[in-house]
Amino acid sequence: MTQRVYNFTAGPAMLPLPVMQRVHEEFFDFQGLGCSIIEISHRSPEFEKLLFETEALFSELLNLPKSYRVVFCHGGGQMQFSMVPLNLMGLKPGRKAQYIESGNFSERAIEEAQRYGNVEILATSRATKYDRIPDFDPKRLDPDASYFHITTNNTIMGTAWHTFPETNGLPLVGDMTSEIMSRVVDYRKFGMVYAGAQKNLGPSGLAVVVIREDLLGHADPLTPKLLNYTQLAKDRSLTNTVNTFSIYVTRLVLDWLKNLGGVPAIQKINERKAARVYKALDAGRGFYRGHAQPGSRSIMNVTFTLPSDDLQKRFIQEALAAGLYGLKGHARLGGIRASIYNGMPEEGCEALAAFMEQFCRKNG
Amino acid sequence: MTQRVYNFTAGPAMLPLPVMQRVHEEFFDFQGLGCSIIEISHRSPEFEKLLFETEALFSELLNLPKSYRVVFCHGGGQMQFSMVPLNLMGLKPGRKAQYIESGNFSERAIEEAQRYGNVEILATSRATKYDRIPDFDPKRLDPDASYFHITTNNTIMGTAWHTFPETNGLPLVGDMTSEIMSRVVDYRKFGMVYAGAQKNLGPSGLAVVVIREDLLGHADPLTPKLLNYTQLAKDRSLTNTVNTFSIYVTRLVLDWLKNLGGVPAIQKINERKAARVYKALDAGRGFYRGHAQPGSRSIMNVTFTLPSDDLQKRFIQEALAAGLYGLKGHARLGGIRASIYNGMPEEGCEALAAFMEQFCRKNG
Repeated sequence: MTQRVYNFTAGPAMLPLPVMQRVHEEFFDFQGLGCSIIEISHRSPEFEKLLFETEALFSELLNLPKSYRVVFCHGGGQMQFSMVPLNLMGLKPGRKAQYIESGNFSERAIEEAQRYGNVEILATSRATKYDRIPDFDPKRLDPDASYFHITTNNTIMGTAWHTFPETNGLPLVGDMTSEIMSRVVDYRKFGMVYAGAQKNLGPSGLAVVVIREDLLGHADPLTPKLLNYTQLAKDRSLTNTVNTFSIYVTRLVLDWLKNLGGVPAIQKINERKAARVYKALDAGRGFYRGHAQPGSRSIMNVTFTLPSDDLQKRFIQEALAAGLYGLKGHARLGGIRASIYNGMPEEGCEALAAFMEQFCRKNG
Repeated sequence: MTQRVYNFTAGPAMLPLPVMQRVHEEFFDFQGLGCSIIEISHRSPEFEKLLFETEALFSELLNLPKSYRVVFCHGGGQMQFSMVPLNLMGLKPGRKAQYIESGNFSERAIEEAQRYGNVEILATSRATKYDRIPDFDPKRLDPDASYFHITTNNTIMGTAWHTFPETNGLPLVGDMTSEIMSRVVDYRKFGMVYAGAQKNLGPSGLAVVVIREDLLGHADPLTPKLLNYTQLAKDRSLTNTVNTFSIYVTRLVLDWLKNLGGVPAIQKINERKAARVYKALDAGRGFYRGHAQPGSRSIMNVTFTLPSDDLQKRFIQEALAAGLYGLKGHARLGGIRASIYNGMPEEGCEALAAFMEQFCRKNG
């Protein structure tokens, strides 16, 4: 095996090494069948067992109440931008949904929802380049709305909700794509959450949906069959051939996480990791300029700029030479982004922080 | 590496060994990046290059005219059951589509299309348990219909269209999930074809669509963004995070196929493979009863029954002990099904045929 870099890309992202090794080891022979996990039927007893165990493990690790279902869907988080309104807009006759606009993906979710109902944007931080989670007045939550949508962690902006709002019965829907399983969340606050797999779970082309059972059964009649949560829940995600490889890797990632001590344990690790990188960022005394306002900082994506484009380019080049891969920020924001998902070991954050400190000393 | 079985499952299915070996070899380090193909961004130059080359290779191997686009979509063939009507039903004001019903998946395609327009079933072989491609009167093709849909190979039934109809300008849409790239086809006859990846291409959770450019631009306004061919074609399949692993494996499979001599070469091999299995089937003088009428036999899926359920069970058990895996037929039909896709080597079909002959001698 060649030298593995520390991979800070935003997703598809770095996976835990023990998981990668396990996939590699059993690649030709899944459970003694004489063929690979990617070559067996999604309806074989071996795969069904794997799928249902993954579903149960997901519930267990998130500590979900019994009234919540876990469903695996095709596509990533963005398919959910359509699926949420298709399935939930009809919950109330007014076909209205309320959204908070906190970044690129919120914008896309809103744009998509507007095609299926009336969307009210309760708050936006667009004017400050999404450098924070915007404040909003909880009195404006409309009990006649079908749902209320937030993006709990904004991958491109590096911001996150630190506490989740009380909605007094209005179903709260959370896009948790870039932070699922990274910190302890009280899911009773949510009617539904969803996450594309490719950041904290496994390979791309899969999303996981957690939905309270009473929200099923309200899909628009024109909802494509495979985008219908009720259908998928009824079929336990086997309405058609699922993304078997991604579910398999997700299962290994969840096993790894459970062995580590579950979500409370990884939260502590993630907080230490993020604290180390933010410390290096802040120590630069203005050399590094964090994009996120301190009160909205994400522990999954750290975004910052350097004094010049030239320094940014050199930062990325020299980091790469030091084995720190994928630090270029999203085009929308420029600068640097370090995605430090569950799969990024503490040593990776230590290496990045040390590099940042050194780069600042040399160039600051 | 343990002993590899000959894997006759219907999909996800056996992949060529050299492809499996390549995936295994470079699993930790894609192109010297120090991370895996499943860990790099879909927007990295390395992945974009891979994607665009796969697209080009697909066109090349199918010998597509320049007016056709290749698009990668989430979900398998069944997502297309919704996408086809969402994108094409609006081609004509009557919102009518004509379908041939030739099996389980045709039924599902029809059921889904009925939610988006008027569906006329031009012919069905349901009464004979889909043992053939039904005849239809080409005069009934309606020039005012938006499209005409056929399932070119019926996975569960083991039947296939041997020649494709002339439609006089009515766009012909073909579900080629279980036979794409298996035989030479004149794609000029089709307005569009689609195929789930998990049989002849790569891992599940991906579909490939080939569509003539003039059919783009007619999607229903309520089409979810990721189900809109026009959007996907504009974004060259990168509207969001694609199933990167499946595209990567598909690329390796296409490289393998090209080295073999392309579709004309694999067609010859597939015909020899199928002929060998059908020979064993027919030699049983009624011990094996083929489901497909000879004029509709598929070269991808061979379906048959044995004189009793008990013999069928023993056939499956003894075959498994002989290294022949996955021969149980679909619940809809029962019996035996041998899926012999591109990835099944000739030796596998020889082994199956020899086993069939021996089993018949012992029990016939």
